[in-house]
Amino acid sequence: MSDVRNRPSEFDLIERLFAPLTSSHPGAVNLKDDCATLSIASGYEVLLSVDTLVEGIHFFREDPAGSVAQKMLRVSLSDIAASGGSSRGYLVALSLPGGVSFEWLEDFAKGLADDQIKFNVVLLGGDTTSTSGPLTLSLTAIGEVPIGKAIRRSDVDVGDDIYVTGTIGDAALGLRLVNEVGREQASQSYPELLERYILPQPRVALGPLLISIATSCIDISDGLCADLSHICEVSHVGAEIRQAAIPLSFGAESLVKNDESYWQFVLGGGDDYELLFTANKNKRKKIEKLAGQIKIPISRLGSIKSDEGVIVLNEEGGLVPVDGPGWKHF
Amino acid sequence: MSDVRNRPSEFDLIERLFAPLTSSHPGAVNLKDDCATLSIASGYEVLLSVDTLVEGIHFFREDPAGSVAQKMLRVSLSDIAASGGSSRGYLVALSLPGGVSFEWLEDFAKGLADDQIKFNVVLLGGDTTSTSGPLTLSLTAIGEVPIGKAIRRSDVDVGDDIYVTGTIGDAALGLRLVNEVGREQASQSYPELLERYILPQPRVALGPLLISIATSCIDISDGLCADLSHICEVSHVGAEIRQAAIPLSFGAESLVKNDESYWQFVLGGGDDYELLFTANKNKRKKIEKLAGQIKIPISRLGSIKSDEGVIVLNEEGGLVPVDGPGWKHF
Repeated sequence: MSDVRNRPSEFDLIERLFAPLTSSHPGAVNLKDDCATLSIASGYEVLLSVDTLVEGIHFFREDPAGSVAQKMLRVSLSDIAASGGSSRGYLVALSLPGGVSFEWLEDFAKGLADDQIKFNVVLLGGDTTSTSGPLTLSLTAIGEVPIGKAIRRSDVDVGDDIYVTGTIGDAALGLRLVNEVGREQASQSYPELLERYILPQPRVALGPLLISIATSCIDISDGLCADLSHICEVSHVGAEIRQAAIPLSFGAESLVKNDESYWQFVLGGGDDYELLFTANKNKRKKIEKLAGQIKIPISRLGSIKSDEGVIVLNEEGGLVPVDGPGWKHF
Repeated sequence: MSDVRNRPSEFDLIERLFAPLTSSHPGAVNLKDDCATLSIASGYEVLLSVDTLVEGIHFFREDPAGSVAQKMLRVSLSDIAASGGSSRGYLVALSLPGGVSFEWLEDFAKGLADDQIKFNVVLLGGDTTSTSGPLTLSLTAIGEVPIGKAIRRSDVDVGDDIYVTGTIGDAALGLRLVNEVGREQASQSYPELLERYILPQPRVALGPLLISIATSCIDISDGLCADLSHICEVSHVGAEIRQAAIPLSFGAESLVKNDESYWQFVLGGGDDYELLFTANKNKRKKIEKLAGQIKIPISRLGSIKSDEGVIVLNEEGGLVPVDGPGWKHF
């Protein structure tokens, strides 16, 4: 631990910053034990997901620490939601290089504290170690789902409708603008696009309501077409979606109107964390009603086909080429 | 991912090395989904523990990859056992520098496969990322324990007996010998000491049997006196143990007979992963019977006192100084 300067010991960090994040959950024993306990509701089973963020790859040290913490947490809450589950808590492992200050970690913990209230989750356990490498954050999210009801990718049928929540492409367009004109200019011209890249809004309310409705569900992290192909691959089917049906924000719409090449970021760019799901045609009314109830826009993009591959059609019925970041040719 | 050479993609790694580790558990969906499901037995709750190992701090690249994997897993199984739980499975996050070969990862996965059979656990989920830093392994272990029955450190009473399993000090003495005479010489003279350092044997069979018997339990990772003080601190009590009662292996006994200074590694050295627990005096017969039943030696070292601090007494009743690695003065 000789590379750690100007920072309290691991013991102090845990006691001062992280133990308070467990205060609503006696089973976490204030992080004073090696294990936490968590009761799962009767008739439910555990949902588990793990993700790692590495500084320089998934975030930068200059990013606000609170946003880094919240993005880390929300990405996992999104995974749990896409399986139809409700998140209960999380464990986090921090590998800290010497240069990470107490203030950075304080902001990081503050970000988690705010999101714990927003999303009704609690820190269940943690581990901090030193590292000679980049700051590395690994988070395991724990949720629950009615036994046997987790939404899987394997129940897709040919003819199923394809839906997405919210608007698509904002996060990738936000990142693209940062690269084109710099962060300051991008956040002045299109603040809502950049905001979507920095801080995803996981669709935690919708996920559990899609049980017994959706035949598959995934959160869009790699990109609309890439994640749609992930769903299709499992069942060796394909998908056909209409470009005109893809829901765009005002910002995204004005960008693609000005320059059609921005469409590639809508089709191929990731990090939107909207839910992409499929459902039998006989569920259309139910899904329409659901969207109204929870006030989340849900758009129907197209349908599942027996021929493998994901196809995007323009209004004339022609093929739209797809070749953006996040899109891999398999 | 540009720093990754001579290694298959993340997709291939998962498909070829890690997905087979989930084959006995359909809820892991072959690692093809973002979440795994796990059913917990009725009347039980979930136990969770997370630990991180960083290359250069907790292990070295030269260490056999299979042993690194098994040590990582066993340390967590030991935590679950010390809480009275039974391990069910685990999730692992790997941050891989460019230089880690496919062969290394193959041996790593093989180590996990062998231990999955030995300890009846299964891989539930994983994430692999690149890193510019050292190889970093983060493991979350999932166990189960009867609801409300997890053994905590807070139920200790003055007058409780103090017990340990197995023999104490072997791992720290093994490491000490490596530093003194080199690995080859150490493994020739005292192979069983070195073996205990390289590969701990978690007391998974005993942990669950200590429910309703032990008033506290911890696995010895920091050292006998340090871990005993962790138990005492929670209840603001102290402990008095007899040096002569501390169980030693033949190797450890011959070392301390030759040179008394080795006692510091017995009292202060860590990494034994034996269970250290306390129990009311009226449980003595039950514990004796238990030790016979599961054929694990259990030794009674002393008892809990109202005065804070951990004291070791020699045969004349004098104080034995404690000042080894792992022992921190609070």
